[in-house]
Amino acid sequence: MEQANKDRSLVSKVMDGLVTGIVEEKYGAILPPQDVLSKEFDVSRTVMREALSMLLARDMLDVRPKIGTRIRPMSDWRMIDEDVVNWRFRAKPDPLFLRDVIEFRILIEPRASAQAAARGSAADIAAIREAFEAFRVIRPAEPGFQDADELFHTRIVVASGNQFFKQMAAIIRGALSTVNPIVNQKEGLWEKAIDTHQRVVEAIEKRDPKEAELASLAMIDYSTEELGSTFASIPPVRG
Amino acid sequence: MEQANKDRSLVSKVMDGLVTGIVEEKYGAILPPQDVLSKEFDVSRTVMREALSMLLARDMLDVRPKIGTRIRPMSDWRMIDEDVVNWRFRAKPDPLFLRDVIEFRILIEPRASAQAAARGSAADIAAIREAFEAFRVIRPAEPGFQDADELFHTRIVVASGNQFFKQMAAIIRGALSTVNPIVNQKEGLWEKAIDTHQRVVEAIEKRDPKEAELASLAMIDYSTEELGSTFASIPPVRG
Repeated sequence: MEQANKDRSLVSKVMDGLVTGIVEEKYGAILPPQDVLSKEFDVSRTVMREALSMLLARDMLDVRPKIGTRIRPMSDWRMIDEDVVNWRFRAKPDPLFLRDVIEFRILIEPRASAQAAARGSAADIAAIREAFEAFRVIRPAEPGFQDADELFHTRIVVASGNQFFKQMAAIIRGALSTVNPIVNQKEGLWEKAIDTHQRVVEAIEKRDPKEAELASLAMIDYSTEELGSTFASIPPVRG
Repeated sequence: MEQANKDRSLVSKVMDGLVTGIVEEKYGAILPPQDVLSKEFDVSRTVMREALSMLLARDMLDVRPKIGTRIRPMSDWRMIDEDVVNWRFRAKPDPLFLRDVIEFRILIEPRASAQAAARGSAADIAAIREAFEAFRVIRPAEPGFQDADELFHTRIVVASGNQFFKQMAAIIRGALSTVNPIVNQKEGLWEKAIDTHQRVVEAIEKRDPKEAELASLAMIDYSTEELGSTFASIPPVRG
Protein backbone atom coordinates (compact mmCIF):
# COMPACT_ATOMS: atom_id res chain seq x y z
CA MET A 1 0.00 0.00 0.00
CA GLU A 2 2.82 2.30 1.08
CA GLN A 3 4.64 1.31 -2.12
CA ALA A 4 1.55 1.91 -4.26
CA ASN A 5 1.22 5.47 -2.90
CA LYS A 6 4.91 6.14 -3.43
CA ASP A 7 4.65 4.94 -7.04
CA ARG A 8 1.63 7.14 -7.57
CA SER A 9 3.33 10.30 -6.42
CA LEU A 10 6.38 9.40 -8.51
CA VAL A 11 4.16 8.95 -11.56
CA SER A 12 2.62 12.40 -10.92
CA LYS A 13 6.05 13.95 -10.66
CA VAL A 14 7.16 12.33 -13.91
CA MET A 15 3.94 13.44 -15.68
CA ASP A 16 4.56 16.96 -14.52
CA GLY A 17 8.15 16.86 -15.75
CA LEU A 18 7.08 15.51 -19.13
CA VAL A 19 4.41 18.18 -19.50
CA THR A 20 6.87 20.91 -18.55
CA GLY A 21 9.21 19.66 -21.28
CA ILE A 22 6.32 19.55 -23.75
CA VAL A 23 5.02 23.07 -23.08
CA GLU A 24 8.57 24.41 -23.20
CA GLU A 25 8.90 22.74 -26.60
CA LYS A 26 11.92 20.81 -25.47
CA TYR A 27 11.05 17.63 -27.40
CA GLY A 28 9.72 18.88 -30.72
CA ALA A 29 6.92 16.85 -32.27
CA ILE A 30 7.97 13.34 -31.23
CA LEU A 31 8.90 12.22 -27.70
CA PRO A 32 12.20 10.37 -27.21
CA PRO A 33 11.85 6.58 -26.78
CA GLN A 34 10.67 5.28 -23.42
CA ASP A 35 14.04 3.96 -22.30
CA VAL A 36 15.69 7.32 -23.05
CA LEU A 37 12.99 9.09 -21.04
CA SER A 38 13.32 6.60 -18.16
CA LYS A 39 17.02 7.44 -17.99
CA GLU A 40 16.42 11.18 -18.27
CA PHE A 41 13.99 11.09 -15.32
CA ASP A 42 15.91 8.37 -13.50
CA VAL A 43 12.84 6.17 -13.00
CA SER A 44 11.93 2.59 -13.87
CA ARG A 45 10.40 1.84 -17.26
CA THR A 46 7.21 0.82 -15.46
CA VAL A 47 6.83 4.24 -13.87
CA MET A 48 7.61 5.98 -17.18
CA ARG A 49 5.16 3.76 -19.02
CA GLU A 50 2.44 4.58 -16.52
CA ALA A 51 3.09 8.33 -16.74
CA LEU A 52 2.94 8.14 -20.54
CA SER A 53 -0.28 6.12 -20.45
CA MET A 54 -1.92 8.78 -18.26
CA LEU A 55 -1.02 11.43 -20.86
CA LEU A 56 -2.20 9.15 -23.68
CA ALA A 57 -5.57 8.70 -21.94
CA ARG A 58 -5.93 12.47 -21.88
CA ASP A 59 -5.39 12.83 -25.62
CA MET A 60 -2.08 14.58 -25.10
CA LEU A 61 -0.04 11.96 -26.95
CA ASP A 62 -0.60 9.33 -29.55
CA VAL A 63 1.41 6.34 -30.57
CA ARG A 64 2.27 6.03 -34.26
CA PRO A 65 3.74 2.73 -35.34
CA LYS A 66 7.28 3.17 -36.69
CA ILE A 67 7.21 6.91 -35.90
CA GLY A 68 6.97 6.97 -32.13
CA THR A 69 4.99 8.86 -29.53
CA ARG A 70 3.69 12.04 -31.09
CA ILE A 71 2.74 15.08 -29.02
CA ARG A 72 -0.79 16.06 -29.97
CA PRO A 73 -1.83 19.69 -30.57
CA MET A 74 -2.62 21.32 -27.22
CA SER A 75 -6.15 22.12 -28.34
CA ASP A 76 -6.84 18.36 -28.29
CA TRP A 77 -5.71 17.89 -24.69
CA ARG A 78 -8.76 16.64 -22.86
CA MET A 79 -9.82 19.09 -20.18
CA ILE A 80 -13.05 17.19 -19.61
CA ASP A 81 -12.95 13.98 -17.59
CA GLU A 82 -15.29 11.91 -19.74
CA ASP A 83 -15.52 9.11 -17.17
CA VAL A 84 -17.01 11.46 -14.62
CA VAL A 85 -19.31 13.08 -17.19
CA ASN A 86 -20.60 9.66 -18.23
CA TRP A 87 -21.09 8.55 -14.62
CA ARG A 88 -22.87 11.78 -13.81
CA PHE A 89 -25.32 11.25 -16.65
CA ARG A 90 -25.82 7.61 -15.76
CA ALA A 91 -27.56 8.59 -12.51
CA LYS A 92 -31.30 9.13 -12.49
CA PRO A 93 -31.75 12.78 -13.51
CA ASP A 94 -33.25 15.03 -10.86
CA PRO A 95 -35.05 18.25 -11.88
CA LEU A 96 -32.19 20.46 -10.73
CA PHE A 97 -29.68 18.50 -12.77
CA LEU A 98 -31.91 18.74 -15.83
CA ARG A 99 -32.31 22.47 -15.34
CA ASP A 100 -28.54 22.92 -15.07
CA VAL A 101 -27.69 20.87 -18.11
CA ILE A 102 -30.30 22.55 -20.29
CA GLU A 103 -29.14 25.96 -19.09
CA PHE A 104 -25.61 25.01 -20.05
CA ARG A 105 -26.57 23.66 -23.48
CA ILE A 106 -28.72 26.68 -24.24
CA LEU A 107 -25.67 28.85 -23.69
CA ILE A 108 -23.09 26.78 -25.58
CA GLU A 109 -24.86 25.30 -28.58
CA PRO A 110 -26.42 28.43 -30.11
CA ARG A 111 -23.12 30.29 -29.90
CA ALA A 112 -21.27 27.29 -31.31
CA SER A 113 -23.77 27.16 -34.19
CA ALA A 114 -23.23 30.85 -34.91
CA GLN A 115 -19.49 30.33 -34.97
CA ALA A 116 -19.83 27.29 -37.20
CA ALA A 117 -21.72 29.49 -39.65
CA ALA A 118 -19.17 32.30 -39.36
CA ARG A 119 -15.95 30.35 -39.59
CA GLY A 120 -16.49 26.61 -40.03
CA SER A 121 -14.47 25.18 -42.91
CA ALA A 122 -16.25 23.79 -45.97
CA ALA A 123 -15.32 20.30 -44.76
CA ASP A 124 -16.75 21.00 -41.28
CA ILE A 125 -20.03 22.13 -42.78
CA ALA A 126 -20.23 19.19 -45.19
CA ALA A 127 -19.72 16.92 -42.17
CA ILE A 128 -22.68 18.55 -40.39
CA ARG A 129 -24.87 18.04 -43.46
CA GLU A 130 -23.73 14.42 -43.72
CA ALA A 131 -24.56 13.77 -40.05
CA PHE A 132 -27.98 15.37 -40.53
CA GLU A 133 -28.77 13.21 -43.61
CA ALA A 134 -27.85 10.09 -41.61
CA PHE A 135 -29.94 11.26 -38.64
CA ARG A 136 -33.10 12.01 -40.63
CA VAL A 137 -33.44 8.46 -41.98
CA ILE A 138 -33.29 6.70 -38.58
CA ARG A 139 -36.40 6.47 -36.41
CA PRO A 140 -36.02 6.99 -32.66
CA ALA A 141 -36.77 3.34 -31.91
CA GLU A 142 -34.07 2.06 -34.27
CA PRO A 143 -30.55 1.22 -33.16
CA GLY A 144 -28.07 3.94 -33.97
CA PHE A 145 -30.54 6.80 -33.47
CA GLN A 146 -28.85 8.13 -30.35
CA ASP A 147 -25.39 7.89 -31.94
CA ALA A 148 -26.57 9.69 -35.08
CA ASP A 149 -28.05 12.53 -33.03
CA GLU A 150 -24.91 12.82 -30.90
CA LEU A 151 -22.71 12.93 -33.98
CA PHE A 152 -24.76 15.79 -35.43
CA HIS A 153 -24.45 17.91 -32.29
CA THR A 154 -20.78 17.04 -31.84
CA ARG A 155 -19.97 18.15 -35.37
CA ILE A 156 -21.53 21.55 -34.75
CA VAL A 157 -19.34 22.27 -31.74
CA VAL A 158 -16.32 20.97 -33.66
CA ALA A 159 -17.13 23.32 -36.55
CA SER A 160 -17.21 26.25 -34.12
CA GLY A 161 -13.41 26.08 -34.12
CA ASN A 162 -13.31 27.05 -30.43
CA GLN A 163 -11.31 24.46 -28.48
CA PHE A 164 -13.30 25.04 -25.27
CA PHE A 165 -16.62 24.55 -27.01
CA LYS A 166 -15.30 21.39 -28.65
CA GLN A 167 -14.36 20.03 -25.25
CA MET A 168 -17.93 20.59 -24.07
CA ALA A 169 -19.20 18.07 -26.63
CA ALA A 170 -19.03 15.35 -23.95
CA ILE A 171 -21.51 17.28 -21.81
CA ILE A 172 -23.80 17.93 -24.76
CA ARG A 173 -23.80 14.22 -25.60
CA GLY A 174 -24.67 13.48 -21.99
CA ALA A 175 -27.52 15.98 -22.19
CA LEU A 176 -28.87 14.28 -25.31
CA SER A 177 -28.72 10.85 -23.70
CA THR A 178 -30.86 12.23 -20.86
CA VAL A 179 -33.29 14.26 -22.94
CA ASN A 180 -33.87 11.98 -25.93
CA PRO A 181 -35.54 9.07 -24.11
CA ILE A 182 -38.08 11.51 -22.64
CA VAL A 183 -38.74 13.49 -25.79
CA ASN A 184 -38.86 10.53 -28.13
CA GLN A 185 -41.75 8.90 -26.32
CA LYS A 186 -44.08 11.61 -27.53
CA GLU A 187 -46.07 11.42 -30.76
CA GLY A 188 -45.06 13.70 -33.60
CA LEU A 189 -42.00 15.04 -31.86
CA TRP A 190 -39.58 13.23 -34.10
CA GLU A 191 -40.89 15.05 -37.19
CA LYS A 192 -40.53 18.31 -35.32
CA ALA A 193 -36.98 17.41 -34.33
CA ILE A 194 -36.07 16.80 -37.97
CA ASP A 195 -37.42 20.25 -38.89
CA THR A 196 -35.57 22.07 -36.13
CA HIS A 197 -32.32 20.26 -36.90
CA GLN A 198 -32.69 21.02 -40.59
CA ARG A 199 -33.14 24.71 -39.94
CA VAL A 200 -29.80 24.74 -38.10
CA VAL A 201 -27.99 22.95 -40.95
CA GLU A 202 -29.38 25.30 -43.56
CA ALA A 203 -28.46 28.42 -41.59
CA ILE A 204 -24.89 27.18 -41.19
CA GLU A 205 -24.69 26.35 -44.89
CA LYS A 206 -25.93 29.86 -45.70
CA ARG A 207 -23.19 31.18 -43.40
CA ASP A 208 -25.76 33.15 -41.46
CA PRO A 209 -24.55 33.28 -37.82
CA LYS A 210 -27.59 35.10 -36.44
CA GLU A 211 -30.06 32.67 -38.01
CA ALA A 212 -27.91 29.71 -36.94
CA GLU A 213 -28.01 30.96 -33.36
CA LEU A 214 -31.78 31.41 -33.40
CA ALA A 215 -32.36 28.05 -35.08
CA SER A 216 -30.19 26.31 -32.49
CA LEU A 217 -32.04 28.06 -29.70
CA ALA A 218 -35.37 26.93 -31.17
CA MET A 219 -34.06 23.36 -31.41
CA ILE A 220 -33.10 23.30 -27.72
CA ASP A 221 -36.02 25.34 -26.43
CA TYR A 222 -38.32 22.83 -27.98
CA SER A 223 -36.91 20.00 -25.98
CA THR A 224 -37.02 22.15 -22.85
CA GLU A 225 -40.75 22.63 -23.27
CA GLU A 226 -41.27 18.93 -23.67
CA LEU A 227 -39.20 18.17 -20.62
CA GLY A 228 -41.03 20.81 -18.66
CA SER A 229 -44.29 18.96 -19.10
CA THR A 230 -42.66 15.68 -18.04
CA PHE A 231 -40.95 17.11 -14.98
CA ALA A 232 -43.59 19.47 -13.71
CA SER A 233 -41.27 20.60 -10.93
CA ILE A 234 -38.40 21.60 -13.18
CA PRO A 235 -37.33 25.12 -12.18
CA PRO A 236 -37.52 27.74 -14.95
CA VAL A 237 -34.42 27.85 -17.11
CA ARG A 238 -34.26 31.53 -17.76
CA GLY A 239 -34.35 34.11 -14.99
CA MET B 1 4.51 -4.20 -17.42
CA GLU B 2 1.98 -6.85 -18.29
CA GLN B 3 0.99 -6.96 -14.63
CA ALA B 4 0.73 -3.15 -14.39
CA ASN B 5 -1.70 -3.09 -17.34
CA LYS B 6 -3.75 -5.91 -15.88
CA ASP B 7 -3.98 -4.07 -12.54
CA ARG B 8 -5.03 -0.90 -14.35
CA SER B 9 -7.91 -2.52 -16.18
CA LEU B 10 -8.96 -4.24 -12.95
CA VAL B 11 -8.94 -0.87 -11.17
CA SER B 12 -11.14 0.59 -13.94
CA LYS B 13 -13.57 -2.28 -13.62
CA VAL B 14 -13.78 -1.85 -9.86
CA MET B 15 -14.28 1.93 -10.21
CA ASP B 16 -17.08 1.30 -12.62
CA GLY B 17 -18.70 -1.19 -10.27
CA LEU B 18 -18.44 1.21 -7.34
CA VAL B 19 -19.95 4.05 -9.37
CA THR B 20 -22.78 1.82 -10.54
CA GLY B 21 -23.55 1.01 -6.90
CA ILE B 22 -23.38 4.68 -6.00
CA VAL B 23 -25.70 5.93 -8.75
CA GLU B 24 -28.13 3.12 -7.98
CA GLU B 25 -28.07 4.29 -4.37
CA LYS B 26 -27.02 0.87 -3.17
CA TYR B 27 -24.73 2.15 -0.42
CA GLY B 28 -26.58 5.09 1.09
CA ALA B 29 -24.46 8.01 2.25
CA ILE B 30 -21.41 6.12 3.55
CA LEU B 31 -19.46 3.44 1.68
CA PRO B 32 -18.84 0.12 3.44
CA PRO B 33 -15.30 -0.31 4.85
CA GLN B 34 -12.50 -1.11 2.40
CA ASP B 35 -12.12 -4.74 3.44
CA VAL B 36 -15.85 -5.35 2.99
CA LEU B 37 -15.69 -3.78 -0.48
CA SER B 38 -12.58 -5.82 -1.38
CA LYS B 39 -14.51 -8.98 -0.55
CA GLU B 40 -17.63 -7.82 -2.41
CA PHE B 41 -15.61 -7.17 -5.58
CA ASP B 42 -13.25 -10.10 -4.96
CA VAL B 43 -10.11 -8.00 -5.42
CA SER B 44 -7.04 -7.26 -3.30
CA ARG B 45 -7.14 -4.37 -0.84
CA THR B 46 -4.47 -2.65 -2.95
CA VAL B 47 -6.70 -2.66 -6.02
CA MET B 48 -9.70 -1.46 -3.99
CA ARG B 49 -7.63 1.27 -2.38
CA GLU B 50 -6.45 2.47 -5.77
CA ALA B 51 -9.99 2.53 -7.19
CA LEU B 52 -11.20 4.51 -4.16
CA SER B 53 -8.30 6.95 -4.44
CA MET B 54 -9.21 7.64 -8.09
CA LEU B 55 -12.77 8.50 -7.00
CA LEU B 56 -11.45 10.61 -4.12
CA ALA B 57 -9.24 12.59 -6.51
CA ARG B 58 -12.34 13.38 -8.56
CA ASP B 59 -14.22 14.80 -5.58
CA MET B 60 -16.70 11.93 -5.63
CA LEU B 61 -15.86 10.73 -2.12
CA ASP B 62 -14.37 12.15 1.01
CA VAL B 63 -12.88 10.50 4.04
CA ARG B 64 -14.30 11.54 7.39
CA PRO B 65 -12.39 10.36 10.46
CA LYS B 66 -14.52 8.06 12.62
CA ILE B 67 -17.39 8.22 10.11
CA GLY B 68 -15.94 6.56 7.04
CA THR B 69 -15.90 7.25 3.32
CA ARG B 70 -18.77 9.57 2.48
CA ILE B 71 -20.27 9.77 -1.00
CA ARG B 72 -20.24 13.43 -2.07
CA PRO B 73 -23.22 15.09 -3.76
CA MET B 74 -23.10 14.34 -7.49
CA SER B 75 -23.01 18.05 -8.32
CA ASP B 76 -19.51 18.11 -6.76
CA TRP B 77 -18.14 15.31 -8.94
CA ARG B 78 -15.33 16.86 -10.89
CA MET B 79 -16.06 16.79 -14.61
CA ILE B 80 -13.09 19.03 -15.34
CA ASP B 81 -9.60 17.53 -15.31
CA GLU B 82 -7.83 20.34 -13.48
CA ASP B 83 -4.37 18.91 -14.19
CA VAL B 84 -4.92 19.23 -17.92
CA VAL B 85 -6.50 22.68 -17.56
CA ASN B 86 -3.49 23.86 -15.55
CA TRP B 87 -1.02 22.35 -18.01
CA ARG B 88 -2.86 23.91 -20.92
CA PHE B 89 -2.63 27.35 -19.35
CA ARG B 90 1.01 26.86 -18.44
CA ALA B 91 1.99 26.87 -22.12
CA LYS B 92 2.83 30.15 -23.81
CA PRO B 93 -0.55 31.52 -24.99
CA ASP B 94 -0.96 31.81 -28.73
CA PRO B 95 -3.48 34.28 -30.19
CA LEU B 96 -5.94 31.54 -31.11
CA PHE B 97 -5.90 30.12 -27.60
CA LEU B 98 -6.48 33.60 -26.16
CA ARG B 99 -9.37 34.16 -28.55
CA ASP B 100 -10.95 30.85 -27.56
CA VAL B 101 -10.62 31.37 -23.85
CA ILE B 102 -11.99 34.92 -23.96
CA GLU B 103 -14.86 33.75 -26.14
CA PHE B 104 -15.64 31.07 -23.59
CA ARG B 105 -15.43 33.42 -20.60
CA ILE B 106 -17.57 36.03 -22.31
CA LEU B 107 -20.27 33.41 -22.67
CA ILE B 108 -20.10 31.85 -19.19
CA GLU B 109 -19.36 34.69 -16.78
CA PRO B 110 -22.09 37.19 -17.72
CA ARG B 111 -24.74 34.46 -17.56
CA ALA B 112 -23.34 33.19 -14.27
CA SER B 113 -23.44 36.75 -12.90
CA ALA B 114 -27.08 37.13 -13.95
CA GLN B 115 -27.94 33.86 -12.23
CA ALA B 116 -26.04 34.87 -9.12
CA ALA B 117 -28.22 38.00 -8.99
CA ALA B 118 -31.38 36.02 -9.65
CA ARG B 119 -30.91 33.12 -7.28
CA GLY B 120 -27.66 33.32 -5.29
CA SER B 121 -28.23 32.83 -1.56
CA ALA B 122 -27.57 35.71 0.86
CA ALA B 123 -24.42 33.86 1.98
CA ASP B 124 -23.22 33.44 -1.64
CA ILE B 125 -23.64 37.15 -2.27
CA ALA B 126 -21.95 38.14 0.98
CA ALA B 127 -19.02 35.93 -0.05
CA ILE B 128 -18.75 37.79 -3.38
CA ARG B 129 -18.71 41.16 -1.56
CA GLU B 130 -16.09 39.84 0.85
CA ALA B 131 -13.85 38.65 -1.99
CA PHE B 132 -14.24 42.03 -3.69
CA GLU B 133 -13.27 43.95 -0.55
CA ALA B 134 -10.15 41.78 -0.20
CA PHE B 135 -9.32 42.26 -3.90
CA ARG B 136 -9.63 46.05 -3.90
CA VAL B 137 -6.97 46.56 -1.21
CA ILE B 138 -4.23 44.53 -2.95
CA ARG B 139 -2.16 46.11 -5.72
CA PRO B 140 -1.30 43.99 -8.76
CA ALA B 141 2.38 43.79 -7.83
CA GLU B 142 1.66 42.48 -4.33
CA PRO B 143 1.59 38.79 -3.45
CA GLY B 144 -1.91 37.42 -3.23
CA PHE B 145 -3.32 39.64 -5.96
CA GLN B 146 -3.86 36.81 -8.42
CA ASP B 147 -5.45 34.59 -5.74
CA ALA B 148 -7.79 37.38 -4.63
CA ASP B 149 -8.96 38.00 -8.18
CA GLU B 150 -9.47 34.29 -8.82
CA LEU B 151 -11.49 33.94 -5.62
CA PHE B 152 -13.79 36.77 -6.68
CA HIS B 153 -14.54 35.21 -10.07
CA THR B 154 -14.88 31.73 -8.60
CA ARG B 155 -17.46 32.93 -6.08
CA ILE B 156 -19.59 34.39 -8.84
CA VAL B 157 -19.83 31.10 -10.71
CA VAL B 158 -20.48 29.30 -7.43
CA ALA B 159 -23.31 31.74 -6.64
CA SER B 160 -24.90 30.95 -10.02
CA GLY B 161 -26.05 27.67 -8.49
CA ASN B 162 -25.53 25.89 -11.81
CA GLN B 163 -23.27 22.87 -11.33
CA PHE B 164 -21.87 23.06 -14.87
CA PHE B 165 -20.95 26.72 -14.53
CA LYS B 166 -19.32 25.98 -11.18
CA GLN B 167 -17.20 23.32 -12.82
CA MET B 168 -16.00 25.88 -15.37
CA ALA B 169 -14.35 27.91 -12.59
CA ALA B 170 -11.07 26.10 -13.27
CA ILE B 171 -11.06 27.41 -16.84
CA ILE B 172 -11.95 30.94 -15.72
CA ARG B 173 -9.07 30.87 -13.22
CA GLY B 174 -6.77 29.74 -16.02
CA ALA B 175 -8.02 32.60 -18.18
CA LEU B 176 -7.28 35.11 -15.41
CA SER B 177 -3.78 33.74 -14.91
CA THR B 178 -3.15 34.34 -18.61
CA VAL B 179 -4.84 37.70 -18.94
CA ASN B 180 -3.82 39.43 -15.69
CA PRO B 181 -0.07 39.60 -16.30
CA ILE B 182 -0.71 41.34 -19.62
CA VAL B 183 -3.39 43.72 -18.39
CA ASN B 184 -1.68 44.63 -15.13
CA GLN B 185 1.40 46.01 -16.81
CA LYS B 186 -0.57 48.97 -18.08
CA GLU B 187 -0.96 52.26 -16.23
CA GLY B 188 -4.35 53.07 -14.77
CA LEU B 189 -5.88 49.74 -15.63
CA TRP B 190 -5.99 48.55 -12.06
CA GLU B 191 -8.28 51.43 -11.03
CA LYS B 192 -10.49 50.60 -13.98
CA ALA B 193 -10.56 46.94 -12.96
CA ILE B 194 -11.73 47.89 -9.47
CA ASP B 195 -14.57 49.94 -10.96
CA THR B 196 -15.73 47.21 -13.32
CA HIS B 197 -15.58 44.57 -10.59
CA GLN B 198 -17.50 46.82 -8.21
CA ARG B 199 -20.29 47.34 -10.72
CA VAL B 200 -20.75 43.56 -10.91
CA VAL B 201 -20.92 43.19 -7.12
CA GLU B 202 -23.44 45.98 -6.76
CA ALA B 203 -25.71 44.60 -9.48
CA ILE B 204 -25.71 41.18 -7.86
CA GLU B 205 -26.46 42.73 -4.47
CA LYS B 206 -29.34 44.66 -6.04
CA ARG B 207 -30.56 41.33 -7.45
CA ASP B 208 -30.64 42.83 -10.93
CA PRO B 209 -29.81 40.00 -13.38
CA LYS B 210 -29.82 42.18 -16.50
CA GLU B 211 -27.47 44.76 -15.01
CA ALA B 212 -25.25 42.00 -13.57
CA GLU B 213 -24.95 40.47 -17.03
CA LEU B 214 -24.06 43.80 -18.65
CA ALA B 215 -21.61 44.69 -15.88
CA SER B 216 -19.88 41.33 -16.23
CA LEU B 217 -19.69 41.76 -19.99
CA ALA B 218 -18.13 45.22 -19.53
CA MET B 219 -15.60 43.77 -17.07
CA ILE B 220 -14.48 41.10 -19.58
CA ASP B 221 -14.76 43.25 -22.70
CA TYR B 222 -12.39 45.69 -21.12
CA SER B 223 -9.69 43.11 -20.76
CA THR B 224 -10.32 41.93 -24.31
CA GLU B 225 -9.62 45.41 -25.63
CA GLU B 226 -6.40 45.60 -23.70
CA LEU B 227 -5.32 42.19 -24.92
CA GLY B 228 -6.21 43.14 -28.46
CA SER B 229 -3.65 45.93 -28.41
CA THR B 230 -1.00 43.59 -27.01
CA PHE B 231 -1.65 40.78 -29.45
CA ALA B 232 -2.30 42.72 -32.60
CA SER B 233 -2.99 39.48 -34.45
CA ILE B 234 -5.71 38.25 -32.09
CA PRO B 235 -8.72 37.30 -34.21
CA PRO B 236 -11.95 39.18 -33.41
CA VAL B 237 -13.94 37.63 -30.59
CA ARG B 238 -17.41 38.28 -31.85
CA GLY B 239 -18.48 37.31 -35.32
